[in-house]
Amino acid sequence: MPPFDIAVLTTGDELLSGDLADTNTGTIAAILARHGFRLRCSLSVPDQEKEIEAALRYLNQHAQAVIVTGGLGSTGDDLTARAAARALGRSLVINEEALEMVRSWFSSRNRPMEPNNERQALLPQHAIPLPNPLGTAPGFWIKERGCELFFLPGVPSEMRAMFEQAVLPLLQSRHPGREPLQQRSYKFFGLPEPKIEQLIPYHQLPEGVEVAFGLDYPLVVVKLKAGGEGADFRLDQAEALLLQQLGDYLMARDGQTPEGNVGQLLTGAGLTLALGESCTGGLIACMLTSQPGASNFLERGAVTYADSAKLDWLQVPLPILRQHGAVSEPCAKAMAEGLRRVADTDLALAVTGIAGPDGGTADKPVGTVFIALASPQGTHVKRYRFHGERQKVQRMTAYMALEWLRRYARNSLAESA
Amino acid sequence: MPPFDIAVLTTGDELLSGDLADTNTGTIAAILARHGFRLRCSLSVPDQEKEIEAALRYLNQHAQAVIVTGGLGSTGDDLTARAAARALGRSLVINEEALEMVRSWFSSRNRPMEPNNERQALLPQHAIPLPNPLGTAPGFWIKERGCELFFLPGVPSEMRAMFEQAVLPLLQSRHPGREPLQQRSYKFFGLPEPKIEQLIPYHQLPEGVEVAFGLDYPLVVVKLKAGGEGADFRLDQAEALLLQQLGDYLMARDGQTPEGNVGQLLTGAGLTLALGESCTGGLIACMLTSQPGASNFLERGAVTYADSAKLDWLQVPLPILRQHGAVSEPCAKAMAEGLRRVADTDLALAVTGIAGPDGGTADKPVGTVFIALASPQGTHVKRYRFHGERQKVQRMTAYMALEWLRRYARNSLAESA
Repeated sequence: MPPFDIAVLTTGDELLSGDLADTNTGTIAAILARHGFRLRCSLSVPDQEKEIEAALRYLNQHAQAVIVTGGLGSTGDDLTARAAARALGRSLVINEEALEMVRSWFSSRNRPMEPNNERQALLPQHAIPLPNPLGTAPGFWIKERGCELFFLPGVPSEMRAMFEQAVLPLLQSRHPGREPLQQRSYKFFGLPEPKIEQLIPYHQLPEGVEVAFGLDYPLVVVKLKAGGEGADFRLDQAEALLLQQLGDYLMARDGQTPEGNVGQLLTGAGLTLALGESCTGGLIACMLTSQPGASNFLERGAVTYADSAKLDWLQVPLPILRQHGAVSEPCAKAMAEGLRRVADTDLALAVTGIAGPDGGTADKPVGTVFIALASPQGTHVKRYRFHGERQKVQRMTAYMALEWLRRYARNSLAESA
Repeated sequence: MPPFDIAVLTTGDELLSGDLADTNTGTIAAILARHGFRLRCSLSVPDQEKEIEAALRYLNQHAQAVIVTGGLGSTGDDLTARAAARALGRSLVINEEALEMVRSWFSSRNRPMEPNNERQALLPQHAIPLPNPLGTAPGFWIKERGCELFFLPGVPSEMRAMFEQAVLPLLQSRHPGREPLQQRSYKFFGLPEPKIEQLIPYHQLPEGVEVAFGLDYPLVVVKLKAGGEGADFRLDQAEALLLQQLGDYLMARDGQTPEGNVGQLLTGAGLTLALGESCTGGLIACMLTSQPGASNFLERGAVTYADSAKLDWLQVPLPILRQHGAVSEPCAKAMAEGLRRVADTDLALAVTGIAGPDGGTADKPVGTVFIALASPQGTHVKRYRFHGERQKVQRMTAYMALEWLRRYARNSLAESA
């Protein structure tokens, strides 16, 4: 396959002032990857004619296709067509086909066309307009010295529709037979990235299988990628080798979330669950219920900040709170056991700890967390010490709790098999 | 002020394959803007030595400062230091100061250092290491032909800390007297962006005050910016004009979150709160408890998926569930009132609804939500219909609930004043 370098140029002051995050590059990148193309670089410049012009000159020399987004609107800071005309040494002319597109957008909606909107049909000479199904600004494309340049609006929904309907088919017709790159991802929990990398059997992986890393704190994401003939089979082999080493730490795969996966395992094992949360304040419940089908296994959850809630909803005995305090192993155990009785579920998971920034002591510093799981086999409790700020401690606690549930449900499924 | 061109280079396959969205560029851009600097361009390239090298050569010629993020980890695809050495024609050497930083990171945490981690101290010759307070990978900086290059890790929290602590002060010392662009932001809830734009009194705003928009669904963020002499005063004027029109919809300001703001208002008004959540599954509790100080007002929360939980924790009468169902105005009212009795709080807020994707009926389609607030003045209930997918319905419900609490607490404070 000959190399085919595609670049993206996003224009807009708001992207470089931190006011708005660029999502167009990611959208284009993901669509390209699914169709066997690869984005070689992406560039962002402000809404200034000179900057856009310089960027276009540079990319025109370094890429075979350039996708430009933004600056096609009807306001004064929409300068892309002018910059393109200058960069390519063409004059700017009213494009009759584009003008017709703008006119029919307004007439089909019975809306008056503003004089400003005519400017949207001012394109570099010999540009070919691209219809915009969702907005007034037509796009356009130009071929120049072996490079094809596609100009699309910056509004994400319009950009996406035009890229998929017009640009992608053109790219595919120019470069037929692209083999889509297949990709599988694996989300691991419980090992740091360097440790995971050591355990990946690089030398045994089939040829042409690439490994990439990503981070979705506190998960480590490993991706396997392969293209061409037999990619599926090679990925199967690579996956088997990877999971032989790391399968025990696998919290979710492609398209799954850890919380969705835990929910499916609990549902599959026919287990019901109740949650008692202090320091996580409902985060575990919130994660599990963000997934459809949570009502199949989750009966109820309690956010027990006040001791009174621990006493009456979770039936924690008062002497335990008095003697050991709310952040203690006996309290976590009593929370889980009381909750399991009250909710009449198979499992009850409780967490209590100090998320910070205040409330830490020498004995129980910020980040001290107790997790307890009450089940028909008894109650398991463990003390942890997590590091970082409040939300990091909460997040780490929630993932650890999900991991407990995943392991319990998985073992339960294995035993019943 | 002489021009000073700053560029950002982000590296990582995941940024160009659509696997991960780049947030670092936006973070750097926003911090620079606040301190009177302007980002001239941002570039993204894959984790490939040649691509990083080419990008560095290009930026080294076109910018006076380059901030590079990513590729400093301990894994095989962390190639930035090598690429930098090649681009700048330097050899790659173990930097003793950097090695000491890596060693002390592990020793201070009583964790063993992996051989891979030593690679993190391999830097281009004469590079000056930058300490990483939050991770193992030191950054570094290099001066080359009138251009200063700063290399930071790609992990957003580490990148941010190092940029603020090390890079920004260096930039400021090189270019003193920059007039920071002052910026204030306002997060509005309850009006769509076009409506908000219509209400902004553009023609009355003092000269030199710019307006920018951002979106943080379901909030609309409006920013006012001004620089130079009297910026503070002009922003005060602009703010007064803005809030005259839109103040009633203001959910939070600069540096505040809606949930943090609600918590402060409740604390300030001396109000205690209990939450009963069905369709939001703990999201409201989770948002409020993500902020320090939540225990000042939040007594407890219940995630009542099963009817049994509504019956015994919230004391919803069985006939109400039988006659009207769990998603109904009477049930929402009973949840809030029962909860307020049980928890003995000033306020009890309950939500029940159908987040989807399943469970909708002709009468109560997906997105139907009831919110109820029980207070000393009685109980207020309202039916809503939110649109979108499950998590969007949950998020919209949570924000609407926070808005109810904000308005109640604000009015309560106003009455007691």
